[in-house]
Amino acid sequence: MNEQRSRAHAPQARRRLPREEREQQIMDCAIRVFAQRGYSAASVDEIAELAGVSKPLVYLYLESKEGLFLACLHREEGRLVAAFQNAATEVGTSELRLWAGLRAFFGFVSDHKDSWAVLHRQAPGLGDAMAAEITRARRAVLTEVRTLVREGIELGGGSGHLGDADADFVAHALVGAADSLTDWMERYPEESPDRVTLRLMGMVWVGMRQILGGEVWTPPGGLEGGAFEGGTGVAGAA
Amino acid sequence: MNEQRSRAHAPQARRRLPREEREQQIMDCAIRVFAQRGYSAASVDEIAELAGVSKPLVYLYLESKEGLFLACLHREEGRLVAAFQNAATEVGTSELRLWAGLRAFFGFVSDHKDSWAVLHRQAPGLGDAMAAEITRARRAVLTEVRTLVREGIELGGGSGHLGDADADFVAHALVGAADSLTDWMERYPEESPDRVTLRLMGMVWVGMRQILGGEVWTPPGGLEGGAFEGGTGVAGAA
Repeated sequence: MNEQRSRAHAPQARRRLPREEREQQIMDCAIRVFAQRGYSAASVDEIAELAGVSKPLVYLYLESKEGLFLACLHREEGRLVAAFQNAATEVGTSELRLWAGLRAFFGFVSDHKDSWAVLHRQAPGLGDAMAAEITRARRAVLTEVRTLVREGIELGGGSGHLGDADADFVAHALVGAADSLTDWMERYPEESPDRVTLRLMGMVWVGMRQILGGEVWTPPGGLEGGAFEGGTGVAGAA
Repeated sequence: MNEQRSRAHAPQARRRLPREEREQQIMDCAIRVFAQRGYSAASVDEIAELAGVSKPLVYLYLESKEGLFLACLHREEGRLVAAFQNAATEVGTSELRLWAGLRAFFGFVSDHKDSWAVLHRQAPGLGDAMAAEITRARRAVLTEVRTLVREGIELGGGSGHLGDADADFVAHALVGAADSLTDWMERYPEESPDRVTLRLMGMVWVGMRQILGGEVWTPPGGLEGGAFEGGTGVAGAA
């Protein structure tokens, strides 16, 4: 992340740009500042200076600090979802498509560290509009993964007994695992996004097919196994 | 969650309580209000009224709205981690311990919906002190899971080639999946915490042993498989 930050201090050209282009450039700078300082501590002054524009121009184009942050969230989420979708539609079987999609996800996170810092760490809890934006993006990814999972089982000759709940379960587990593994990836920078993807596929692919084929893990030795058929309350939890 | 909220409006006894006990009671009420309104919209007035105490008493005991929120986070995280740890130390093999720990986790989330709403949805992004508190708790859970994973492989006769990175990978994937599956559990309230645990164990247990035994998934048919040995950058990601 530090390399990106130091690049952020390169002098910006002040030539006149069309509004669309200027907005994109302001957002590029804003993402760096939001990632570095956090939403609350980030100042529009610093963003404007980094972008080489006046503060009033930032307000004219993007309304407010919150408006700017929302625009950044929206753009980066769009890019992330598109990276996943594009990769996932390129190849044949759904196993390969899931692999390609996850690879694109980890690749995006690795190549756009500031964007991911904003999406992953800054956005939650910052108010209704931002939470809604994040929820929207997460749903888009979940829907995409769920579709891959469903198709995979249908094409792969699963038991045919595939409920929405099952596909949704697998999608939630995968998306949550991938999300959390971006922290792992940061701790082990020598591990490439490709390696992370192969590890995750190895960890979940076999088990996914089991779940979606209707098999349920039971505690070995039958210990208390019978107690869970009814699906009633949990013992010893609280 | 609604049942808990309606119970919150039961009249509170105004008898004198020792400070320790009164603080706990204020926190009980605060968690309901924070879960319902969100941190920003929650008011100390409402919390004090619900607890049947004066607003100055809340400030005297817990300093500020942020202090109150931090105290709630700290207490609920402690309870969640303890539930996981206690369950996980009760049984023999690490496969069973992991199962028992996950079961306790999903049971806690199911039984303490307001606590989980505060930990899961309200806390991130609310400032450094709160983020640090959440990070601390997440690390405690990750460490616990990593230990189970390591022990499981050692006892279970794994390949012996188990790095910190591998155990940490599995722990991150598991914790992220469990986190995300609490949203799934909310969408499918007819699924008990026990069923959620069995599904998750089924999805990850086999794959965990593969990863920790040094096996890596490769794309079927050898497609592009050789390209990933070197662990270099990702193609088609951005």
